Amino acid sequence: MQHLIRTDDFTTDEIEAVFADAREFNKGAYERILQDKIVITLFFENSTRTRSSFEIAAKRLGAEVVHLDVTKSSTQKGETLVDTAMNLDAMNPHAMIVRHQNAGVPKILSKHTKSAIINAGDGAHAHPTQALLDLFTLKEHFKDVKGKKIAIVGDIKNSRVANSNIELLTRFGMEVILVAPPHFLPKTKLRTTHYLEEIIDEVDAIMSLRTQTERHSSQSYASLRDYASDFCISTSLVGDRDIVLLHPGPVHRNVDICDALLADERCKVLEQVTNGVSIRMAVLKKLIQNV
Amino acid sequence: MQHLIRTDDFTTDEIEAVFADAREFNKGAYERILQDKIVITLFFENSTRTRSSFEIAAKRLGAEVVHLDVTKSSTQKGETLVDTAMNLDAMNPHAMIVRHQNAGVPKILSKHTKSAIINAGDGAHAHPTQALLDLFTLKEHFKDVKGKKIAIVGDIKNSRVANSNIELLTRFGMEVILVAPPHFLPKTKLRTTHYLEEIIDEVDAIMSLRTQTERHSSQSYASLRDYASDFCISTSLVGDRDIVLLHPGPVHRNVDICDALLADERCKVLEQVTNGVSIRMAVLKKLIQNV
Amino acid sequence: MQHLIRTDDFTTDEIEAVFADAREFNKGAYERILQDKIVITLFFENSTRTRSSFEIAAKRLGAEVVHLDVTKSSTQKGETLVDTAMNLDAMNPHAMIVRHQNAGVPKILSKHTKSAIINAGDGAHAHPTQALLDLFTLKEHFKDVKGKKIAIVGDIKNSRVANSNIELLTRFGMEVILVAPPHFLPKTKLRTTHYLEEIIDEVDAIMSLRTQTERHSSQSYASLRDYASDFCISTSLVGDRDIVLLHPGPVHRNVDICDALLADERCKVLEQVTNGVSIRMAVLKKLIQNV
Repeated sequence: MQHLIRTDDFTTDEIEAVFADAREFNKGAYERILQDKIVITLFFENSTRTRSSFEIAAKRLGAEVVHLDVTKSSTQKGETLVDTAMNLDAMNPHAMIVRHQNAGVPKILSKHTKSAIINAGDGAHAHPTQALLDLFTLKEHFKDVKGKKIAIVGDIKNSRVANSNIELLTRFGMEVILVAPPHFLPKTKLRTTHYLEEIIDEVDAIMSLRTQTERHSSQSYASLRDYASDFCISTSLVGDRDIVLLHPGPVHRNVDICDALLADERCKVLEQVTNGVSIRMAVLKKLIQNV
Repeated sequence: MQHLIRTDDFTTDEIEAVFADAREFNKGAYERILQDKIVITLFFENSTRTRSSFEIAAKRLGAEVVHLDVTKSSTQKGETLVDTAMNLDAMNPHAMIVRHQNAGVPKILSKHTKSAIINAGDGAHAHPTQALLDLFTLKEHFKDVKGKKIAIVGDIKNSRVANSNIELLTRFGMEVILVAPPHFLPKTKLRTTHYLEEIIDEVDAIMSLRTQTERHSSQSYASLRDYASDFCISTSLVGDRDIVLLHPGPVHRNVDICDALLADERCKVLEQVTNGVSIRMAVLKKLIQNV
Repeated sequence: MQHLIRTDDFTTDEIEAVFADAREFNKGAYERILQDKIVITLFFENSTRTRSSFEIAAKRLGAEVVHLDVTKSSTQKGETLVDTAMNLDAMNPHAMIVRHQNAGVPKILSKHTKSAIINAGDGAHAHPTQALLDLFTLKEHFKDVKGKKIAIVGDIKNSRVANSNIELLTRFGMEVILVAPPHFLPKTKLRTTHYLEEIIDEVDAIMSLRTQTERHSSQSYASLRDYASDFCISTSLVGDRDIVLLHPGPVHRNVDICDALLADERCKVLEQVTNGVSIRMAVLKKLIQNV
């Protein structure tokens, strides 16, 4: 049984095959190839968009989805997380899609289950399907991404999206530059800067991350407005440069990206969402079609 | 793409066609004509019965339903309502069924989405499928409703059910009389009265509305008991008159309608529920079968 | 319409037929025989595992499942429980699977509905599908259970699982011994003891029950640790005896059963979970395939 915990669980060839499928699925070319498969969504953290993306992906291919909102579940009755997963696994689902606030949970569960574990985001660790859909969106736009430069902007240190993208985009030959205030930068060998202006003339793409409002109060930035004045991707910054904009959503308008750019055709946010469903269809097909 | 935000989004002919389909569906004559269609239920306000009615309607026709309880969703993360809808829309569902506590939300969303928006109740504005099932129930009983008189009783001013019914029932030739205490009456050209006794000998049907307990405390009625003594549809009021009773549910027993009448065959409350599923099947068929 | 409220709603022959089906289903031998059937899960009490077991059972056979989390529903709007059920019943589902914190609720609802009511646990009264899967698991192991001795251990007085098992296991010829502290023992004609050591050399199986943490504070046992020292099924108690261990889950590790035994092949907890899905498939088939 193959799992998807991190992007590096898939080889480059496997990823290209996933993308080839996703491209077909984007055209509406799919059938109920997962009929009679059971997929459990096991979300310890709420997520409307990621959950619905996986659910629509599974249902388009004919799979049955059982959604468990485990914020209010057995783990409250003194059962351990691993026991909860092993019990669900004993019901013989084909895949379990797991989101958890703690890094490492999907990996641990995958050691105890027969069903495929798909990581839908674990703490600040990884969010592999998000990175796959991001790379896919970039490849659909640029065709060849090798040598392209992308700036990842925002709270990179705490971002599983950034983490997974850094592994994946560099593996496919992109140059990644991290742009953030000092307290949001991780230790890294990548090029970093605190100033968007420094890199704006070089980059082919910018990936803005979600500001996590709840953290800003106790940080060195006095307010979201201060953060936005330095790191919001704005029309005055971008101008008419040929730069592609990505964001994993939900977008904090005029803090992450300004209204005008969100409505601009260089902004691929909704394309990312559309591609996300097709990427997840392809991942589900890969992992459970033949089990 | 056609939406259903208000009853007047459908012409009289379109409504007759919906009723013809619903009549067939009531007999069990239907197939999985919506297989491979995706329907999202986007309920910002809880509603067991309306949601399950739509969900059963969609599933009977083979559609897949993704339920999003958006009381605990992205809108909490600083995303706007329109962004939430546009993101879901980018996943290419065929319809989104929206309930919201504020009037006008489904209309606004419909301007930003490719998928069909079905209003499942917005504030005090409209609840079109409820009015359609009410009229359908009346037509199934009377065959010809033209010239029939119906009293709508209760908190009419704050009722989306009343609003939608007033448009629809008068359009189909019924005479609507509004019966309520003064503070529950809207400005209207329709005939109004504060006394059920005044109209009981004239009407062919009575539609009782749900009393909203939470509002009564601060109103001129000292208690639900006072309200009930004047406006509860009771055996002593109705006697053996040939009057059809409707209620959108949930019924507040012995405040809206007395126990004895709820068990009486003149009461069509459960027929309304049964018809509701068939009406929603017909609406879904109309809006998304050929998209 | 046949319901399943208590184990004694099914004759011994009916149960053997359910077991024969479950045995086939365990081998993967099933088809979408319940396609176009609608099953409502009506859970007034949360239960991740029971609900997902029923949901997977229904979906494997092709039925559509509508899940209603009725802890936040119409019953909050002043509607009675029976009215809620009658309204859902008017939508013509084929079965309603009901869990409620109060004994007797599923029975009451079954008197007002056309659809099959399946009791998924009501207060301290009954949990028939749990008992069926327990007996099935024992029969799969022992082949002939007649004359076998089983100890039920824990808070028996408040346990619907114990209640249903006592009826069912004795009917199939097993001898049931109740092991518990005095305040957890019901009035009974069965043999009882306060000491596991007293029966450990006689029994063929032990069914440990879930300790309900919330109750222990006000009981004569000062702490869970005290309870565990007397009633936890431990390696030092069981030794290498040929005894089968059951537990309805979720297991409170090292309070109900020790870690070592949970990992031991004599422990059938995960087999019970697997069998539970097949038993529920067989029950659904029996009750709604031909309606």
